[in-house]
Amino acid sequence: MILTVTLNTALDITYRVPALRPHSAHRVTEVTERPGGKGLNVGRVLAALGHEVTVTGFTGGATGRTVRDQLTGVVDALVPVEGSTRRTIAVVDTTTGDTTQLNEPGPAITATEWSAFQETYEHLLRSASAVALCGSLPPGVPVGAYAQLVRTARTLAVPVLLDTSGEPLRRGVAARPDIVKPNAEELAELTGTHDPLQATRNARRRGARAVVASLGPDGLLAHTPDGHWRATPPRRVPGNPTGAGDSAVAGLLSGLVEGLPWPERLARAAALSMATVLAPTAGEFDRSAYETLLTEIAVTADATAA
Amino acid sequence: MILTVTLNTALDITYRVPALRPHSAHRVTEVTERPGGKGLNVGRVLAALGHEVTVTGFTGGATGRTVRDQLTGVVDALVPVEGSTRRTIAVVDTTTGDTTQLNEPGPAITATEWSAFQETYEHLLRSASAVALCGSLPPGVPVGAYAQLVRTARTLAVPVLLDTSGEPLRRGVAARPDIVKPNAEELAELTGTHDPLQATRNARRRGARAVVASLGPDGLLAHTPDGHWRATPPRRVPGNPTGAGDSAVAGLLSGLVEGLPWPERLARAAALSMATVLAPTAGEFDRSAYETLLTEIAVTADATAA
Repeated sequence: MILTVTLNTALDITYRVPALRPHSAHRVTEVTERPGGKGLNVGRVLAALGHEVTVTGFTGGATGRTVRDQLTGVVDALVPVEGSTRRTIAVVDTTTGDTTQLNEPGPAITATEWSAFQETYEHLLRSASAVALCGSLPPGVPVGAYAQLVRTARTLAVPVLLDTSGEPLRRGVAARPDIVKPNAEELAELTGTHDPLQATRNARRRGARAVVASLGPDGLLAHTPDGHWRATPPRRVPGNPTGAGDSAVAGLLSGLVEGLPWPERLARAAALSMATVLAPTAGEFDRSAYETLLTEIAVTADATAA
Repeated sequence: MILTVTLNTALDITYRVPALRPHSAHRVTEVTERPGGKGLNVGRVLAALGHEVTVTGFTGGATGRTVRDQLTGVVDALVPVEGSTRRTIAVVDTTTGDTTQLNEPGPAITATEWSAFQETYEHLLRSASAVALCGSLPPGVPVGAYAQLVRTARTLAVPVLLDTSGEPLRRGVAARPDIVKPNAEELAELTGTHDPLQATRNARRRGARAVVASLGPDGLLAHTPDGHWRATPPRRVPGNPTGAGDSAVAGLLSGLVEGLPWPERLARAAALSMATVLAPTAGEFDRSAYETLLTEIAVTADATAA
C-alpha cells in the first residue's frame, strides 16, 4: 500500500454567498464539506487511480470524528488526539467567483501524542511501498518533524516524497527525501531565487534526490538523478486550482510505485493536476479530461537544466 | 419546568482574525463555539437564574451531535432529524472590532419530522409552567408553525412567549400569545410604523396579550393588560449586544413564572439584557453587573402609552 501522512488534517467547508461584504450578515446559499489536508487529498486521488492507500496523521474532537466518518476508499490509520481537528472555510463569492479563506490553526499536539504518532508511522511503513508527507504542521509538533519522518522512511528503505513549505521544508530537504514537490513560491522561499531552473538545482544541492516544481499553468519542472524534464500542458484551462498540487503528488507517487520512467510519471502528474483544475468540485479530478490530457502533455528533456 | 423551543438550533462559532480582507487567506487566531439559536440561549440564562429548563426543537448530523454534547444545565428534549444542524460563523476583525456573519440555512425538515416535533412539544407542555418560542424557522417548517404552537400552548393553558420576526411573527401574533418581544426593527416590520409607542399598541391589537419591545440602549417598552411601562437603563454601556434580546426573554419568562408584577419583570429583563452586553463572552451575562443594575433600572408607568 501507499502511505500518506497528514499531520494537520482538516474538515474543508465551502460556503457560497451571493456577495461577501465585511461587517454584514450573510445567508449561506450552499454548504459543502469534505475531509481535507494535503495528505488526505493525495490519498483520495491515489485511491481513485486504483491504489491501496492508508492515511495517517492526527485527528481529534467532533470535527475529527466528522473527517473520519467521511473518509472513503482509504484505510484510516489516523492517530486520535485530545485537541480538535481544524476546519477550513472557503467563502466563494458567487458574483465575482473570488474565494476568501478562513483557516483554523489545528489542535495543539502534546509530546506524548507526537511520540504515539511516530510509533504508528514506523509500524505502517513496514508494509508501505512509498510514503507522502504532506502539508503544514499543527501547533506543538517540532519544526524538524518532517526531517525525522524522512529519516525513518529512509532507514526502512521506503521511498519518501515531501510536500510542505517554510522551515519544515528546509529541514526536511536536508534529511534527503527521494522527491520534494514545491510550488514556485515554496521553492523561492527555500532557495532565495525566483528563477525556477536555478532554484530546482539549488533544492537538489540542499539534499533532495529529485525535485519536481509545480509551476501552475506552466506545468512541471523536474530535476532528478535520471535527467531533467519539463512537462508542459497543451493549453491553459479555466477552473479552481485547489488540490491541483495534491493531484500532482498522487501522480508522481503512483508512477514511482508502478516503476514508470520519469517522463511518464511527469505526464501523469501534470495531466492529473490539470484535470483537477477542470473538475467542478474543488479537489476532485475529471477522469475523462485526465485520460485525454495524458496523451497531450508534452514532456521534453531539458538540456539547459543540467 | 420552563420549556424553550428552538426550531433552528445552531452551533455558534466565533473566529477572531487580525483583519478580514475579502479574497485573501486568513489564519484564525482564536476559535470559540457554543450551542446557539435563540431558545437555547434563553434556556441557558434561565438555568443560570436557577430555573429548571427543558429545551426542544430540531437537531441533526454531526453539528447537531456537537450542540447536544455541549448543552449543560438544561434537559435535552431536542428532536433528531435527518438533515444537519446549521453552523453560524461570526468573524471578528480584531483591528476594527467589527463582525462579519455567515449563517448556514439549517436542515430541511420533513412533514414527518415536523409532526414528530409537535407530539413531543404537546407532551412536554403538560409539565411546563411557561414556554418560549424563539427564532427563525428552518427550511420545510410551515410559515404558520408558531401560530400552531401558540394555539397548542393556549389550549393547555401554558403561558406562551413568542420571539421571532417576519411572517412567522405576523401569523404567530394572530394566534394570541401571552407575550411577544420584538425588537424595534421586527416591530416596525410587523406594524408598518417606526414609532415604538404606536407600534406596540398596534401589535397588541393584532392579538398579543402583552407586547414588550426591546429598544436596544433605550431599554424596554411594555404594553400589557395591567398597564404600560418603560424600563430605562441608567446609562449606555459598551459591549457586544449579541444575546441581549434572549436574556430579556429569560428575564420576562422567569418573572412570569415567579409571579412577579410587571415592573419587576421588566427591571429584571432590562438588567439581564445590559449585563449581557457587558459580558466579555457574547451571549453570557455578567452576574455582578446584573445584580447592581437590577437596583438601577428605572421602571416608570407610561401614561402616554394608554
